[in-house]
Amino acid sequence: MANAPDVGELTPPNRTLMGPGPSDVHPRVLKAMSTPLVGHLDPSFIDIMNDVQELMRYTFRTDNQWTIPVSGTGSASMEAAIGNLVEPGDTMLVPTNGYFGGRMESMAERAGGNVVHVDAPWGEPLDPVDVQEAFDEYQPDVFGFVHAETSTGVKQPNVSELTSIAHDHDALVVADTVTSLGGVELEVDDWGIDVAYSGPQKCLSCPPGASPLTLNDRAMDKVLSREHSPRSWYLDLSLLEGYWGEERAYHHTAPITNVYAIREALRLVAEEGIENRWDRHLEVASALKAGVEAMGLGLNPEDDYWLPSLNAVLVPDGVDAGEAISYVLEHYDLEIAGGLGALAGDIFRIGCMGYSAKPKNVSFLMTALGEALEAQGADVDVDAGFSAMREQLSR
Amino acid sequence: MANAPDVGELTPPNRTLMGPGPSDVHPRVLKAMSTPLVGHLDPSFIDIMNDVQELMRYTFRTDNQWTIPVSGTGSASMEAAIGNLVEPGDTMLVPTNGYFGGRMESMAERAGGNVVHVDAPWGEPLDPVDVQEAFDEYQPDVFGFVHAETSTGVKQPNVSELTSIAHDHDALVVADTVTSLGGVELEVDDWGIDVAYSGPQKCLSCPPGASPLTLNDRAMDKVLSREHSPRSWYLDLSLLEGYWGEERAYHHTAPITNVYAIREALRLVAEEGIENRWDRHLEVASALKAGVEAMGLGLNPEDDYWLPSLNAVLVPDGVDAGEAISYVLEHYDLEIAGGLGALAGDIFRIGCMGYSAKPKNVSFLMTALGEALEAQGADVDVDAGFSAMREQLSR
Repeated sequence: MANAPDVGELTPPNRTLMGPGPSDVHPRVLKAMSTPLVGHLDPSFIDIMNDVQELMRYTFRTDNQWTIPVSGTGSASMEAAIGNLVEPGDTMLVPTNGYFGGRMESMAERAGGNVVHVDAPWGEPLDPVDVQEAFDEYQPDVFGFVHAETSTGVKQPNVSELTSIAHDHDALVVADTVTSLGGVELEVDDWGIDVAYSGPQKCLSCPPGASPLTLNDRAMDKVLSREHSPRSWYLDLSLLEGYWGEERAYHHTAPITNVYAIREALRLVAEEGIENRWDRHLEVASALKAGVEAMGLGLNPEDDYWLPSLNAVLVPDGVDAGEAISYVLEHYDLEIAGGLGALAGDIFRIGCMGYSAKPKNVSFLMTALGEALEAQGADVDVDAGFSAMREQLSR
Repeated sequence: MANAPDVGELTPPNRTLMGPGPSDVHPRVLKAMSTPLVGHLDPSFIDIMNDVQELMRYTFRTDNQWTIPVSGTGSASMEAAIGNLVEPGDTMLVPTNGYFGGRMESMAERAGGNVVHVDAPWGEPLDPVDVQEAFDEYQPDVFGFVHAETSTGVKQPNVSELTSIAHDHDALVVADTVTSLGGVELEVDDWGIDVAYSGPQKCLSCPPGASPLTLNDRAMDKVLSREHSPRSWYLDLSLLEGYWGEERAYHHTAPITNVYAIREALRLVAEEGIENRWDRHLEVASALKAGVEAMGLGLNPEDDYWLPSLNAVLVPDGVDAGEAISYVLEHYDLEIAGGLGALAGDIFRIGCMGYSAKPKNVSFLMTALGEALEAQGADVDVDAGFSAMREQLSR
């Protein structure tokens, strides 16, 4: 048997995080994570759970009782939503316009569902006409869409139109709000979203580990009247109801420290005010957008469905995206990312999320990215970019 | 829509945690959790992942390549083990001698498996003779047992005998080591355990959120040659292989901070030395055991299968367990717990785990518990208890 490994102190580099997530974490949230633990059944922890639920409802813009942090990262809240809502034999309609629609499909199939598609190209939103046609053709029980597609930088407009179509067909709507919650306008109740899930490490700037999920009564009625148990015990909402509901009975050990962290991250949302927070993201991302465009770079999505929290910037001709990404990481400790799937190699994905959404980071990004592109001989006008960025910031 | 909730600063009480987990977290681990994040695909995070895997192998006493932290609390690593290993139509043999055998059953059924039982009373271990009979009768594909049963305080002896029976029948063995890993002798490779899962918040004294799992090649061969995908996408080990294996491809966002924390917690194991750590748990728990026995209290399990990390102390006649538990919480900020299931009301569950396993905590426990029992008029000899505890500690 091996001797004890000799592993040194934890000394990760000091990155600035402007990729698709995680974003930079606010110092108050980091501090909350070093708080000594109480037990997950401690009477004082129940107050903390209540605080988190109340703050999360505020951030989702919902009155849903069933608003909880799921004990895992964003894909866990996603699978909790889909795995509980989709019963064997159900039909789920999913989009094909990005990476995360594909993940919805895989989860729905594993839940025993039949999957049908509504198509749009990567980089474009769903068209309500297509959604209407898909409903008429397939009569799905559940409709999933991605409000803020992290793989393409597209914000889905017309959400209320989509949910109306679904409700006219007695279907339930699941929204992926991973990259919108806390950064981009999102109105769960007013828009008629039945179930929304998110991650904490995007616009909430909280370390991943406990992930927001909200379901209205109509969705919970379906969950609680299932004929067969969901296929995951860990993510079974009818059991989690016992812990997060009035009974407060033991199900599994909650990730206590992550609950502390999301409480503090959501407190920061409440202090700033949710509308102010949306405005800040829009203003800072507008400066980023103006800057890169004046440098000579295009954004992939059209302006009508540009997603401020995740900017899909087209890679200029002759530039190797991976090389530029490595350049800014090595020279500036700055994280940005490349494209996925159909957009691999074609875009940079530059996050403007939560604590990272500030003028300091945008200037830094412009400096680093401009240099990385010039190093590859790209035809970019960095001076013009800075000028446009500053002008936008001063508005 | 509601106004922003006015939620105050996080100020949980300062508990001493001697229940069934979480245990008190070492200050170095708390400090690691406030470290700023790098991205989950950052080159520097790959080194951190490698460190964690190496330290985890040391702690499990295994050379298994497939040794990873699962992105959730202990029940997530448990469901990752069972949900990947059990295919629809497989038969899994599970024990009935505690709470967590029942959880195994529920997870195996949700995975599509047929469940059969090997019986023993709550508070007793499995008898190899019964396991042999169950194998002869049912020919199960997978056999699950609980090495350290948190609900009863029983340590399963004869592990090598059990695994031999299983291997003679070509079955795979899954061990629940939630309350033994890092605190009680555990030899994954030498004992022939194919798959072991654990939680970080017990003898590793790490906040819950990333949970140890190890599989040998034989088990991974079964996982990677499944006909149908496992029923959870989030916990699909064939996909996680892409992230934790050589490819380092994106699957889901890892709980970065929890990985930092478990790295530090496992470093503390390596610094102390795993055998020294087992010895410390045994010595400190022996003092606790000697103390409560000399006070006049019995332990539920027989000495041969007493579990040092979780002491199931019999509640004396006339004492209301819940009242005593509330007393020590309110008067001493000390967490202990009561029994579950068949032992509800009959036992106190007193943890002696990780950073909580120290003489200071045992003296404190004796003081608080003695007073709580005297407050209910119980016939206990606290002086004799202290004397026996001190004598044991001075050995």
